[in-house]
Amino acid sequence: MKLFEPLDINGMVIPNRIMVPAMVTHLCKEDGVVTEDSIARYARYARGGIGLIVVEAMAIHQAKSGPLLRISDDSYVSGLTRISKAVHDASDSKVVPQIIHFLKVARSGWRQTVDMLTREEIGRIVEQFGNAVRRAREAEFDGAELHAAHAYTLSSFLSRTNPREDDYGRTLEGRLHLIGQVIERVRREVGRDFPVGIRFNVEEFLKTGYTVEESELIALRLAELGFDYLSLSAGGKFEDAVHIPGQVLFPYTGYSGERCMPGQWFPAALNVPLAARVKSFLRKNGFDTPVAIAGKLSDPADAERVLTEGLADFIGIARGLLADPDWPHKVRRGELERIVRCDYCNVCRNLDGTHNVVVCTLWPQGMIQAPEDTVDLPAPQWETDQGALQAAIGSGGVVLKWSKASGAARYDIYRSDEQGGLRLLDAVKANRWVDPGILGGKQYRYYVLPCSATGRAGSPSNTASIDIPTPEYMGH
Amino acid sequence: MKLFEPLDINGMVIPNRIMVPAMVTHLCKEDGVVTEDSIARYARYARGGIGLIVVEAMAIHQAKSGPLLRISDDSYVSGLTRISKAVHDASDSKVVPQIIHFLKVARSGWRQTVDMLTREEIGRIVEQFGNAVRRAREAEFDGAELHAAHAYTLSSFLSRTNPREDDYGRTLEGRLHLIGQVIERVRREVGRDFPVGIRFNVEEFLKTGYTVEESELIALRLAELGFDYLSLSAGGKFEDAVHIPGQVLFPYTGYSGERCMPGQWFPAALNVPLAARVKSFLRKNGFDTPVAIAGKLSDPADAERVLTEGLADFIGIARGLLADPDWPHKVRRGELERIVRCDYCNVCRNLDGTHNVVVCTLWPQGMIQAPEDTVDLPAPQWETDQGALQAAIGSGGVVLKWSKASGAARYDIYRSDEQGGLRLLDAVKANRWVDPGILGGKQYRYYVLPCSATGRAGSPSNTASIDIPTPEYMGH
Repeated sequence: MKLFEPLDINGMVIPNRIMVPAMVTHLCKEDGVVTEDSIARYARYARGGIGLIVVEAMAIHQAKSGPLLRISDDSYVSGLTRISKAVHDASDSKVVPQIIHFLKVARSGWRQTVDMLTREEIGRIVEQFGNAVRRAREAEFDGAELHAAHAYTLSSFLSRTNPREDDYGRTLEGRLHLIGQVIERVRREVGRDFPVGIRFNVEEFLKTGYTVEESELIALRLAELGFDYLSLSAGGKFEDAVHIPGQVLFPYTGYSGERCMPGQWFPAALNVPLAARVKSFLRKNGFDTPVAIAGKLSDPADAERVLTEGLADFIGIARGLLADPDWPHKVRRGELERIVRCDYCNVCRNLDGTHNVVVCTLWPQGMIQAPEDTVDLPAPQWETDQGALQAAIGSGGVVLKWSKASGAARYDIYRSDEQGGLRLLDAVKANRWVDPGILGGKQYRYYVLPCSATGRAGSPSNTASIDIPTPEYMGH
Repeated sequence: MKLFEPLDINGMVIPNRIMVPAMVTHLCKEDGVVTEDSIARYARYARGGIGLIVVEAMAIHQAKSGPLLRISDDSYVSGLTRISKAVHDASDSKVVPQIIHFLKVARSGWRQTVDMLTREEIGRIVEQFGNAVRRAREAEFDGAELHAAHAYTLSSFLSRTNPREDDYGRTLEGRLHLIGQVIERVRREVGRDFPVGIRFNVEEFLKTGYTVEESELIALRLAELGFDYLSLSAGGKFEDAVHIPGQVLFPYTGYSGERCMPGQWFPAALNVPLAARVKSFLRKNGFDTPVAIAGKLSDPADAERVLTEGLADFIGIARGLLADPDWPHKVRRGELERIVRCDYCNVCRNLDGTHNVVVCTLWPQGMIQAPEDTVDLPAPQWETDQGALQAAIGSGGVVLKWSKASGAARYDIYRSDEQGGLRLLDAVKANRWVDPGILGGKQYRYYVLPCSATGRAGSPSNTASIDIPTPEYMGH
């Protein structure tokens, strides 16, 4: 599979095309110092065989925030080095930190915007990015990634909504000005040889935000500026966020936020056509800068297709690798049925929004890291014959009930119908589930698969069939 | 060209694959009676050779609104017949009215939602739709189209955000219940032979709205219900609309509204991949119900590609045909350079939002209908040699200035650069324009084309080249 071919990113050879993008963990404290739990999270990804691990965004400055890693002072380097070492000790995964600057937010809903920054403050941001990437190199990371996506400072400058009236705004050139100054400063600090990538939005998904029409040009400019990889994300903006009284604005609460971490009802691989345009535009202009794309790409067949069709060079999987860091091993060994498949419930996003430790609900209760694949948990066993799955029509749709299986950490629910073939609908811990996505006059067939915490499945339940009555208006 | 092949829609043979979707005109008064101006608007489309003309949404009930056509009483039939006759007298265009029910809105920002309707009120809506379509047949229309898109009642029932807790909500079946009852009632009134289409959203573009994952199933159900064509639109919802104090909520003010009538910065043909999924799903399930798609499709090459690749069966062009109803004739004759090209400025949308008569800014000042192509306006003549186009760097981008051309109704502004080939940037009436979409270190070349009101172009201006200085941070 092309997924398991290495990729050379300015000398940083990632052993496969699988990247875990930066995800907040809240495993550190407000002091921003690396903890044992932080280290354990990234070592776990490394043991899973992930090609490129992007460590959660770390701040280049001391601005108040929740529990967030910092790279804003030389004193943080020793802690950060523990992450890079733990990754390198565990596997041939490569590891880079995501480097972030963000503006101020207040519980009143007020937020600082880029037009409030003086030119001196902008100059200081440039300097801080340079120092931060130097510290990343000192902390023995394999490279660094600048965060120019979502709701953060570089992205807000890049945005089509940037309201500045000076040469940091107004034109596309102006919107790119700060990123240009930052990378120049970064190169002065770490040289041309240290791999430096950038993550930015391929679309803002805001009413007046930029679309792929402009991100083609933005990507070309970033390639010209010598960024070593481009990691494409989408949405996640403050502009359409919903303010909850008494809380700071959380940029994943509006439509753009949903597009950033799309829920179960969005199509798979939804950003791929956008990445394909950017990749093709770069190629047409003579640039082979590696491009990564993310967004519901945890189906191995989708990921492989993106690579074989040349639509992108490597694949970002955030929630899917949080759910199962062993995804790479399992895909390579062809053990697809053992993958703990993300069901896009977005509890992880909500934990982030409430400043709780970010875990996956598919992990066993109470764990703050994914269970080890080396633990050879037995396959779950039905307590009743074949789970005794029953399907009945209830007021909210088809109600499924089944018996428990011992050793089951979760139950995957599958449905087939005349139209769509077999489809994983959800993964739940309880032994009851309601399917609202039903149509009258159809027959649906369900089964439930009990799975251990490491993805070992027991035998499928019996199949429960149900005929939904034809509505009276269709009798003609 | 496939664009000019006829299409049989349940006996209604449209002479080509070009449809003008329903667009509010505000050419009638609050009484909802057809006026001479209403008739003139649709006769103009017919003279332009448009295959299927969908007349602006007309209400099945008397609820208060701005100037909006009504089909809520038999007394409206004679007026409506004047539209169908005017179209049929002018050409072989086919004409159907769009039939709408909407809920109440107030200047306070309050709006009625579907969960406020009693079952009796819902029953009344079913009845009203039946009567309205019967009147459409009596008014000698060739068919009718139900409006189940955007922010209106049928769409709000269909929405994934439908909050009803009875069998008109909760499940996908419940959300489709009202549409099912409506079409059953309509068929009881007009029989199976009268062509009845439906317009619905292929995506809601709301945070918790449905996506193409569900619209595949919705489309299949609508085909099973015997709708004779499916016209796909997108967005345009109340849920993310921005309330302006003292005004009723206008559903084209949020992101979903922008996706409904996308501005200049959105890609061309942006909904085509969604339509392609729906069409392919229908085909896989044995349905050949004609599918129309709209959304920045006024480039003839895009429209033709959609048809030849089988991604849809006919093409909706709203703003592009408002700008130039003669688009079909001009495309068929190969006179592409004569098309008055919509620049997606959305003044038409804003006129709708403020309840003004909807016109196109590319028409000559003061006109409320598109100028006649039969008026043989002379090509514009530059007042100075070749327009004396000048390009200079200003604070907001490249500032273009040129001299006037006599007989010019507008100036089309073209740019070429190293990347993108030649591109139409904008169409303006003034003789000054600023290009904010510039990057340092590039050379841009501009020219301006003066055009008469009917699209007859004068000679292009001189080409003005400009080098944008390389930013200091790129000197390395």
